[in-house]
Amino acid sequence: MYQDIDLVEIDGLMQQSWKAFMQYRNMPIAMRAAFMKKIAEELEHCGDALIQTAMQETNLPEARLRNERGRTIFQLNNYADACLRGEWMDIRIDTAIAEKKTPKPDIRKMQIPIGPVVVFGSSNFPFAYSTAGGDTACALAAGCSVIVKAHPAHAATSQMVADAINKAVTALQMPEGIFIHVHGAASAIGEALVKHPLTKAVGFTGSFVGGKQLFDWGNQRKEPIPVFAEMGSVNPVFLLSEKLKTDAVSIAKNYAASITLGVGQFCTNPGILVGINDNNLDIFCSVLKDEIEKIPSAKMLHNGIAKNFSANKTKALMQQHVETIAASTVHEQNFDESLSANAIIATTTADVFLQNPQLHQEVFGPYSLVVKCKTSLEMLQVAEALEGQLTCTIIGTDEDIAASKMLIEIISLKCGRLVLNGVPTGVEVCLAMQHGGPFPSTTDSRFTSVGADGIKRFARPIAFQNWPNHLLPDELKDENHLQIWRTINDIPGKH
Amino acid sequence: MYQDIDLVEIDGLMQQSWKAFMQYRNMPIAMRAAFMKKIAEELEHCGDALIQTAMQETNLPEARLRNERGRTIFQLNNYADACLRGEWMDIRIDTAIAEKKTPKPDIRKMQIPIGPVVVFGSSNFPFAYSTAGGDTACALAAGCSVIVKAHPAHAATSQMVADAINKAVTALQMPEGIFIHVHGAASAIGEALVKHPLTKAVGFTGSFVGGKQLFDWGNQRKEPIPVFAEMGSVNPVFLLSEKLKTDAVSIAKNYAASITLGVGQFCTNPGILVGINDNNLDIFCSVLKDEIEKIPSAKMLHNGIAKNFSANKTKALMQQHVETIAASTVHEQNFDESLSANAIIATTTADVFLQNPQLHQEVFGPYSLVVKCKTSLEMLQVAEALEGQLTCTIIGTDEDIAASKMLIEIISLKCGRLVLNGVPTGVEVCLAMQHGGPFPSTTDSRFTSVGADGIKRFARPIAFQNWPNHLLPDELKDENHLQIWRTINDIPGKH
Repeated sequence: MYQDIDLVEIDGLMQQSWKAFMQYRNMPIAMRAAFMKKIAEELEHCGDALIQTAMQETNLPEARLRNERGRTIFQLNNYADACLRGEWMDIRIDTAIAEKKTPKPDIRKMQIPIGPVVVFGSSNFPFAYSTAGGDTACALAAGCSVIVKAHPAHAATSQMVADAINKAVTALQMPEGIFIHVHGAASAIGEALVKHPLTKAVGFTGSFVGGKQLFDWGNQRKEPIPVFAEMGSVNPVFLLSEKLKTDAVSIAKNYAASITLGVGQFCTNPGILVGINDNNLDIFCSVLKDEIEKIPSAKMLHNGIAKNFSANKTKALMQQHVETIAASTVHEQNFDESLSANAIIATTTADVFLQNPQLHQEVFGPYSLVVKCKTSLEMLQVAEALEGQLTCTIIGTDEDIAASKMLIEIISLKCGRLVLNGVPTGVEVCLAMQHGGPFPSTTDSRFTSVGADGIKRFARPIAFQNWPNHLLPDELKDENHLQIWRTINDIPGKH
Repeated sequence: MYQDIDLVEIDGLMQQSWKAFMQYRNMPIAMRAAFMKKIAEELEHCGDALIQTAMQETNLPEARLRNERGRTIFQLNNYADACLRGEWMDIRIDTAIAEKKTPKPDIRKMQIPIGPVVVFGSSNFPFAYSTAGGDTACALAAGCSVIVKAHPAHAATSQMVADAINKAVTALQMPEGIFIHVHGAASAIGEALVKHPLTKAVGFTGSFVGGKQLFDWGNQRKEPIPVFAEMGSVNPVFLLSEKLKTDAVSIAKNYAASITLGVGQFCTNPGILVGINDNNLDIFCSVLKDEIEKIPSAKMLHNGIAKNFSANKTKALMQQHVETIAASTVHEQNFDESLSANAIIATTTADVFLQNPQLHQEVFGPYSLVVKCKTSLEMLQVAEALEGQLTCTIIGTDEDIAASKMLIEIISLKCGRLVLNGVPTGVEVCLAMQHGGPFPSTTDSRFTSVGADGIKRFARPIAFQNWPNHLLPDELKDENHLQIWRTINDIPGKH
């Protein structure tokens, strides 16, 4: 339906993006925020047509898509507010001290935009982590221009969102080229975008293979650029004994819902559940089985994802000493096995898990592996064997926690978010959110892709030394008429 | 004098560093700060012996080395204070909202140490950017263990500083292995340290070739790690016309001093001076010539650097249409041409400069190239042609600035620090300092290696979701008894 952009057009588009960036970067933050809020408004104005198109392209249900659009609008407004508050700018002012032996000059530092940002949206969030999603909102808040490569799996949805953004561009007379939208299924297009000399940063949400490729391209450039790729993880959950004694049933019910939420297509889906092999874990597994068996199959985002789920699930289940303990066989109407997925829960021992790294890998979809440990020492070994994660979860009482100091030590080294007595799915959009963990869950654990601190991925500090007040940017002037929080001579405050 | 460490020993040392990290990361920030302050004290206690050793190894004069030790002590104390204030921790607390449609959990985020940091010190700062220098201080403040590879050019100095640090380790009963010091001239040792799986970040100050190699090794790992390499730059200075009309003489005098400060061996040495070819630039050049000719030769850090200076200077001067306009021929006593350097100023036209990228390269030492432009448009083209820089400097009146908006736009995209009517040498240690610019001046323009914000290179955020107050780290507890600045529900304050 949408033709891939011709590679020869990319240079012209990047020049246009650069030109727009040069104007946009100097616009007051109030105009950036207004632009973002206008985009949010236009997304709302897309009305049902956008939801219908997304439903057709992604198989996601209407309610979910309405929620997700709501989240996307919230993100744009929330990051616009953060842009105005300015804590992401890390403003530091050190005033001159003339009487020092070597006189200290006046130095003032703030964040400025890094340059044009290329955004690769995700397949599983057609709104919130796609065209007008988190990366785009962060880049616009930072003062960057944005080039989005539409995800081919929801190209029409992406086009409609791009059209909405362009309405906002026109309405507020933003520089032409501030937002550029291209279609491209071929990987050469992604490569050309990442490697173009005017591209200064990349945002990505998706698979490990895709993200790692972009990261490598970014680093292989003559001028390497930061590539923030969020590549998902297995989000291990540690079920501690005391808690299971009393709450195995309710926890199992919560987890059946979390594992199958959105047909398991969340980067924070709990893919590994680790427990001590005792009666309480048996009860947990048995309730989980009952719950999972009741959940009907559901359509995945597209055939490719369904095919991968089927293949990865089969591969996991074919490993020695891995047993299926629960499988939904309830089929939705018009069941199509090349597109729909039934949830499945497998189990194995810690021994087997430790010896087979294949079992540590993400199976994207409604799948989870219960790893049964003989002892809490084995549980530590399982934790130790895991790679970097977006989240780790502890299910435990205070007593469990007190007895598990080492376990918590180990997993806190492995993840960006540590959940207690909850599920990892459901990533709250707020300043305190950390959605970014050690490799391979992301390419740089020092940043987040959810929450307004994600703006920092696309900004860099510049210090002005010895500039008189009237020549400084508004953010750094004595008056602080933007009312931003700033640290002056080591003292933070709205001054 | 010092043998290279055997490659087979590295794994054992990294294991030791990891073990120490696991203890140190949980120590209260007050203990980190006390440790850093104790190191500062021990450096002071090294007394004259340390200065004498450094003088022998680096040829730097006594006064400079005493100053530099003072700076190193100041850094340790300053970053220790910053560690306690905690603004680098970017603490964000979002409290629960139970009545939301989907209840919002309590989420609290802080920075935690990234893991063992390998530090490669610089040749030109035997104290301040070496063994107990900025990278080590930042890493310790973040809560990381540190492994320093001594610079072979000042190995004995490095060893004495390491001994001082180890005294502090013993005095405060810090975990054994928190600081590890190895000698190694062979590049295989650097490679093994960067590629060891337990290494989680790298700090480097030095040449482009060295820094880029470490960066590539860091990215080629199975688990890529952040490598912050500060690789120097030419620090262009733009001499604007109105200012030169009145101040050419004093500016030329300041620049003669800046170019030859520390025998030109600073990463912020002004290597390119760009002006409009008129009478005032002639006056500037003529005074610069007189000043430079009065400056005696001086010993460089070591033979390798002197040899490189001689070779790079010769290469620059051999380029077509490059003329020498000033050369010092005053020799210090016991002049040794394989070790000492005479300052030299060359000149060329913007035309020639634009056509010859060789002239854009850093000549590390007391050398500067005056680029004469016919018009301010040519000056823009010169600015446009430059690579990423640590600093750019404008010498101009308000009138000049008003007439040079485009020039300031261009250079602000290229540098981390923008100096007005000053010299780029002299990097103040303060929170507002930005010592890090676009590639190739550093490998990541989003970070700094001078000032307490440099701590952030070696820390990453973790979010605690739904943890009760009594189980949270002190930094995140409701009470805030550490009295840290924190952002609670989007409002920053000491609360």
